[in-house]
Amino acid sequence: MKLLRVGPPGKEKPAVLDDSGIPRDLSAHVPDIGGAALLPEALEKLRAIDPNSLPALNADDRIGACVAGAGKFICIGLNFADHAKEAGAQIPDEPIVFNKWTSCIVGPNDDVIKPRGSTKLDWEVELGIVIGKPGAYIDESDAEDHIAGYCLVNDVSERHFQLECGGQWAKGKGCDTFGPVGPWLVTPDEIDDVNNLRMWLDVNGKRYQDGSSSTMIFKPNFIVSYLSRFMSLQAGDIISTGTPPGVGMGQKPPVYLNAGDTMKLGIEGLGEQAQAVVSAD
Amino acid sequence: MKLLRVGPPGKEKPAVLDDSGIPRDLSAHVPDIGGAALLPEALEKLRAIDPNSLPALNADDRIGACVAGAGKFICIGLNFADHAKEAGAQIPDEPIVFNKWTSCIVGPNDDVIKPRGSTKLDWEVELGIVIGKPGAYIDESDAEDHIAGYCLVNDVSERHFQLECGGQWAKGKGCDTFGPVGPWLVTPDEIDDVNNLRMWLDVNGKRYQDGSSSTMIFKPNFIVSYLSRFMSLQAGDIISTGTPPGVGMGQKPPVYLNAGDTMKLGIEGLGEQAQAVVSAD
Repeated sequence: MKLLRVGPPGKEKPAVLDDSGIPRDLSAHVPDIGGAALLPEALEKLRAIDPNSLPALNADDRIGACVAGAGKFICIGLNFADHAKEAGAQIPDEPIVFNKWTSCIVGPNDDVIKPRGSTKLDWEVELGIVIGKPGAYIDESDAEDHIAGYCLVNDVSERHFQLECGGQWAKGKGCDTFGPVGPWLVTPDEIDDVNNLRMWLDVNGKRYQDGSSSTMIFKPNFIVSYLSRFMSLQAGDIISTGTPPGVGMGQKPPVYLNAGDTMKLGIEGLGEQAQAVVSAD
Repeated sequence: MKLLRVGPPGKEKPAVLDDSGIPRDLSAHVPDIGGAALLPEALEKLRAIDPNSLPALNADDRIGACVAGAGKFICIGLNFADHAKEAGAQIPDEPIVFNKWTSCIVGPNDDVIKPRGSTKLDWEVELGIVIGKPGAYIDESDAEDHIAGYCLVNDVSERHFQLECGGQWAKGKGCDTFGPVGPWLVTPDEIDDVNNLRMWLDVNGKRYQDGSSSTMIFKPNFIVSYLSRFMSLQAGDIISTGTPPGVGMGQKPPVYLNAGDTMKLGIEGLGEQAQAVVSAD
């Protein structure tokens, strides 16, 4: 299944994509895509529904983040050896864990707001894991059972806030609109090999990132298991697993985003996003 | 008002404390204490209710976290000059910002679970700010209008996870049960001077922390304004503002918590917490 949320911000309807790519309205079956609707038994019920029996939604309507009400937005840093190198960092022995504030989550094609004082606005195409079955101390061999699906994430980052304003990364990772998520939550059965998906990102039509999940240092099942040592995971939690080389900070000289710039990004099988950068009021 | 939540985990009833310290049931007026119920106009409606007209709840029942469904649990690090010194850190030029995962939030007297692999479990009595009116780019002079109230927080921390497992602090700050919040959300009108409140914490009956919010480097109104440059704030967000000296890591030699230990802590006017430490299964 490809699950999505269609409609204006805050009023999205839960939907499933039919075989011809038309979103079909799931409102009669679930209140939203998120939390309880992502538990394994709830997903099974959705799977039993024939999409063709559902009302069609307008395929041109806005798409929201594919998960509503995420309780946690957890990120893994420097998880591609080449990206660690371009960031001037060592390859980590253990996953680096940080957060994006959940209030940063937006739809895949919503504008990205360059905050006041931003001088180093950057991009990161990432593979997102969405938790279904809750758990703690999850064995790596059981991790698959806890994953409701995968999605595309742009881990938008402000490097000055992240690295030059003191302390932790939290200031530069979770500004409003820094978390485009979607278009779809794709269930694992629709993905041949999550560890071999092409990932790319263009800025103003120029390709900057062109990688593959095959070069991730820590893989999704390990990440789910590892994180669950430090916190319980709940249905609807989103885990973004790190970015391949080609971010703006890694260019020589660095390239950062300004109002009017556009980003397009995608992951094989998980759809595409397109964002315009606008200035904060 | 002193707002609280009374009942078993996940089934707490919203309540207000009456003049004799008895919780009175607000269920007929708000679904819960959190989110929309903390908006200024919603708090005004609660204020208009005579607590004596409400059903009494059992004062011996469990108390939950005083805020339900917090979207963000934001923390300020090293915000007391003396604590920065004991942690071997410089006094920060700007607030250090980090997160506690929202799944760590528990009631003020619930057990604190020592996670598997934990060797350096520590305590931090802190003053919590609860957001009422949402906003971004909030002027310091307007910050008061955005604060629904204050509460007691124990910023339970695992120093090995936080400092010795690579990367950011996030691994050691948000383990399950690391966020006792409450007993009460106290509205600002009930607090004479939030910048002059005594704060203390005992472990096994011995006083380790005995400080005052008067020695905070960055004060609540500034913190709200500062954070709102990096993210919008929503009703029900909790901001924990840093701890005075006397944490376990700062003792010579360091003192860390084990199963069977007990913590008692309080802030003048905001009530007390008591936690027993238990081992993870």
